Amino acid sequence: MQDLGYYNGEYGPLHDMKIPFNDRVCFFGDGIYEATGYEHGRIFHLEAHLQRFAASAEFMRLYLPCSSSELADLLYAMAAKVDGEPLQIYWQLTRGTAPRSHPFPAGVPANLWIMIRPTQYPDLSKRIKLTAAEDTRYLHCNIKTLNLIPNVMASQKAAEEGCAECVFHRGEIVTECSHSNISILKDGVFRTHPDDNYILPGVAKARLIQACLSLGIPVKERAFTLAELRQADEVIVSSSTKFCLLADTFCGAPVGGRDTATAQRLQDWVLNELGISVQRLSDLA
Amino acid sequence: MQDLGYYNGEYGPLHDMKIPFNDRVCFFGDGIYEATGYEHGRIFHLEAHLQRFAASAEFMRLYLPCSSSELADLLYAMAAKVDGEPLQIYWQLTRGTAPRSHPFPAGVPANLWIMIRPTQYPDLSKRIKLTAAEDTRYLHCNIKTLNLIPNVMASQKAAEEGCAECVFHRGEIVTECSHSNISILKDGVFRTHPDDNYILPGVAKARLIQACLSLGIPVKERAFTLAELRQADEVIVSSSTKFCLLADTFCGAPVGGRDTATAQRLQDWVLNELGISVQRLSDLA
Repeated sequence: MQDLGYYNGEYGPLHDMKIPFNDRVCFFGDGIYEATGYEHGRIFHLEAHLQRFAASAEFMRLYLPCSSSELADLLYAMAAKVDGEPLQIYWQLTRGTAPRSHPFPAGVPANLWIMIRPTQYPDLSKRIKLTAAEDTRYLHCNIKTLNLIPNVMASQKAAEEGCAECVFHRGEIVTECSHSNISILKDGVFRTHPDDNYILPGVAKARLIQACLSLGIPVKERAFTLAELRQADEVIVSSSTKFCLLADTFCGAPVGGRDTATAQRLQDWVLNELGISVQRLSDLA
Repeated sequence: MQDLGYYNGEYGPLHDMKIPFNDRVCFFGDGIYEATGYEHGRIFHLEAHLQRFAASAEFMRLYLPCSSSELADLLYAMAAKVDGEPLQIYWQLTRGTAPRSHPFPAGVPANLWIMIRPTQYPDLSKRIKLTAAEDTRYLHCNIKTLNLIPNVMASQKAAEEGCAECVFHRGEIVTECSHSNISILKDGVFRTHPDDNYILPGVAKARLIQACLSLGIPVKERAFTLAELRQADEVIVSSSTKFCLLADTFCGAPVGGRDTATAQRLQDWVLNELGISVQRLSDLA
């Protein structure tokens, strides 16, 4: 089939699936999610995504109606039914179905949603353009929730400006992007915002840090400024579906491109770990 | 009928209504809403709610699929079909139905939702207990969006502590509550947070300000601190469905109750304007 949706045990094509009006996602965005890729029979970094999902659930006091291992089995079984590769594997958990009222509904189980659909890898040999927006989000950006309006608005800004991403900053401090993390290379050091409540603890970012450790590249997990981003040797945007993209423009001005060798090594490491075939910076060499 | 739901032209009992899996509310909470009451054939302060709805839509770049006056007609027609009074009148607008992707979907109309159901007035002769939480929400609290997780968590905290509301504060500065505004009386002056991006411009709060103007009570629209709340003569919680409640406890300590006469005048004014019959402070006199 072309794609496949799941909602509390019901399956169907995404376009035809329906969910209850009273699911609390409809009134409060009251839920959490995860998204990653799938190819060659493997869901990318599934264990890390399941762990982060469990962490989000704990912050939100949400309870998965099955074990993580049962969820993993379900994701694999569904992925096997959808035609073509690569696929996007997306799942979310919402705080049950009940008449609208702010506090948690008593004795109501959470709702599990799954969405499997075709995706395309970005061309990682092409550098991307970035724009920027003040980070006015709530102070729980470490929890992967469905309260994403500021991310939507920032993504729309990027799209309208012909950019691939929008960089959030709190004053001068760069936090992350609208749906990815951001890191820089400067004088051979990999610099990225520490995992705290201002950013999502990105699975792809964690793999980049692992790449640095493996490749002998020093890592400094300390926030950087807009000025430091502008002066960086390379600007790296990472996510589970975009892997490791390099920027060449920030708010209309040239950025990065001064340490292609290190950028290539990092990109190759994360792509080789996944074992996927995709255009990459080193293909340009 | 007992209650009535509406989604893009489809009607049904709320319990049975379904909406598409791909409505953007499901992935991003990407929408806005309004809620008010209805009795004796009148939707309370409908014009003000429609104006605020239009303002939220403009901030969010959402487009109502009908005129405000057509929406008003629809709300009245639906309210007339639901048994009993009073009713809650709730409506929301979400950014259309499309495969999940952060930026706005091109050429996709917004989805209109309506929910009409029985409600009960609170007993306004009884004082309420309040708890508190740091206000960690985004900086767009003036827009009435469906990104309400922090409000849900704060409401749950209040419920677990046997309180009617949770007071948000940014450091020492009191902003509003989890689903209502908060104001104080001190030395005969009505004090409330100014309308800015930290609070919702409450319709009920605006009526309280109008009540003050009518009754000759000075109004100071300037933020107050937690200490000023603790020392206030009266602490007033207002919303379109709770009208004007008075507090007697804040975080377990006694609060207010030192200017019952002024509190009564305000409560009577807002209830008389609505022409509804409900237990009020002056009934205790």
